[in-house]
Amino acid sequence: MTTSTASTAFAPGHVTAFFSIHRAESPATSGSRGAGLALSEGVTATVSPTDGGDQGKNEIHLNGTRVTIEAVEHVLSELRVTARVRLETPLTPGAGFGVSGAAALATALAANNRFDCGRTENELVRLAHAGDVEAGTGLGDVVAQARGGIPIRLEPGAPGYGSLDGIPDRCRVEYVTFGELSTPDVLSGETEALSAAGERALTALMGDPTVETLLAEGRRFTREIGVATPAVAEAIDAVADAGGEASMAMLGRSVFALGTGLTDAGYDPSVCRTHPAGATLGSE
Amino acid sequence: MTTSTASTAFAPGHVTAFFSIHRAESPATSGSRGAGLALSEGVTATVSPTDGGDQGKNEIHLNGTRVTIEAVEHVLSELRVTARVRLETPLTPGAGFGVSGAAALATALAANNRFDCGRTENELVRLAHAGDVEAGTGLGDVVAQARGGIPIRLEPGAPGYGSLDGIPDRCRVEYVTFGELSTPDVLSGETEALSAAGERALTALMGDPTVETLLAEGRRFTREIGVATPAVAEAIDAVADAGGEASMAMLGRSVFALGTGLTDAGYDPSVCRTHPAGATLGSE
Repeated sequence: MTTSTASTAFAPGHVTAFFSIHRAESPATSGSRGAGLALSEGVTATVSPTDGGDQGKNEIHLNGTRVTIEAVEHVLSELRVTARVRLETPLTPGAGFGVSGAAALATALAANNRFDCGRTENELVRLAHAGDVEAGTGLGDVVAQARGGIPIRLEPGAPGYGSLDGIPDRCRVEYVTFGELSTPDVLSGETEALSAAGERALTALMGDPTVETLLAEGRRFTREIGVATPAVAEAIDAVADAGGEASMAMLGRSVFALGTGLTDAGYDPSVCRTHPAGATLGSE
Repeated sequence: MTTSTASTAFAPGHVTAFFSIHRAESPATSGSRGAGLALSEGVTATVSPTDGGDQGKNEIHLNGTRVTIEAVEHVLSELRVTARVRLETPLTPGAGFGVSGAAALATALAANNRFDCGRTENELVRLAHAGDVEAGTGLGDVVAQARGGIPIRLEPGAPGYGSLDGIPDRCRVEYVTFGELSTPDVLSGETEALSAAGERALTALMGDPTVETLLAEGRRFTREIGVATPAVAEAIDAVADAGGEASMAMLGRSVFALGTGLTDAGYDPSVCRTHPAGATLGSE
């Protein structure tokens, strides 16, 4: 097997500042409302056929390690292909960057191209969104990652059901990670108060659709739902003390900041930018 | 006035392969269905306040020449600002690249940023779309230019009314221009047969959403509506004879081709690529 038989796609990472949960009958119509930032760092998926030795079994590697990612398996199953998927990302999985959603979306785009599945972009986004929702690993990352920029999820669900808007801006983004937080655990808990806080934040953001308000509402949401660990809360406060804007990446033990916010506060953050394009075929 | 008081935005050019016309009560709900390519070459708008000498009058320059572009004036009027707008583009206006729509969209993004108008992306796209429709210079370019990639206009109209999909691909694009064709003249003529041909092409494309089918349906649409000049028809045929894929840019005397189609046919084309991001703040 040569590399010329592989197709590659990229999906940006995504940090959610705040969200509300909306469960519906199907995974495609379920999702979240909320807002966040699509990141120039994300997941690159390279998809090729398997050798055929283990018929019907996908081979998924994340940064060189064999893994099982339910959302990715879902996508391949729906496309009716068996594939070798190499996923590469500088982002920490389980830390609030939507790595599972990006993996599913990039795999969908690359697999559709490699195996001539003949799907449109909306259809591929729908498969990846449904996979992420079914796996319990995300509710809104995929549609945001497909759009790029600074996405606002106005209505929940995949293309054809949900709807999106965006904040017309671009910015440098810094982030630090303090460890994992299990998305399925939080999403399966009591979520009424969380959703109410998320709805209030969305209303406030639509009244003043700027990145500064996005971050401010993210901080308020973080306080109200009480999921910040001491390290996360300390970093957010330190950035504020240094005159910057930071918030927590939902749902992970990560803090993201605009511009040089974390650097100014004395942290040694990773640095990226908002990603204008959304997921695309090819590598970035 | 220093350049630091200016904001800049970019909107990709867009060639439509085929379309149908849908007139509704308002410009925002009017539009077209169809498909085309968003181009890496487009319009960069730099927006700053006027000196105030000619109160309430915008100063719009296109590649250094003072011009009036109705869609741009519409956007500034709706944003309630008076501005100096410098538009730069390598694309020929009036040749089927959606220059008026790109100018309106880039101006909307830059003016919103410069004057803190506080609009969301959807709101800005809506203003630019309505301006292009009211001016009679475009029916679907703006929503495609806001999306980027290889946009399919499933339903007509601005965000909140229309809906979009896309072909999941990226490609090199070549183009040649043989002169202008008046968009208002064609759009104000008898358009029932045109729309019927456009609907057939869209149905065919959704059955096989690939760039090759996009171009093939574009050629069929071009033949059926009979707007190709001899030079356009000759170029399309020459590309086909050389084994390539080309079609006419609606509505202009331009031919676009995939890959090296026009070069292989002996033309000396301009070269760009599909633009994945859609319109964004900042210059590309």
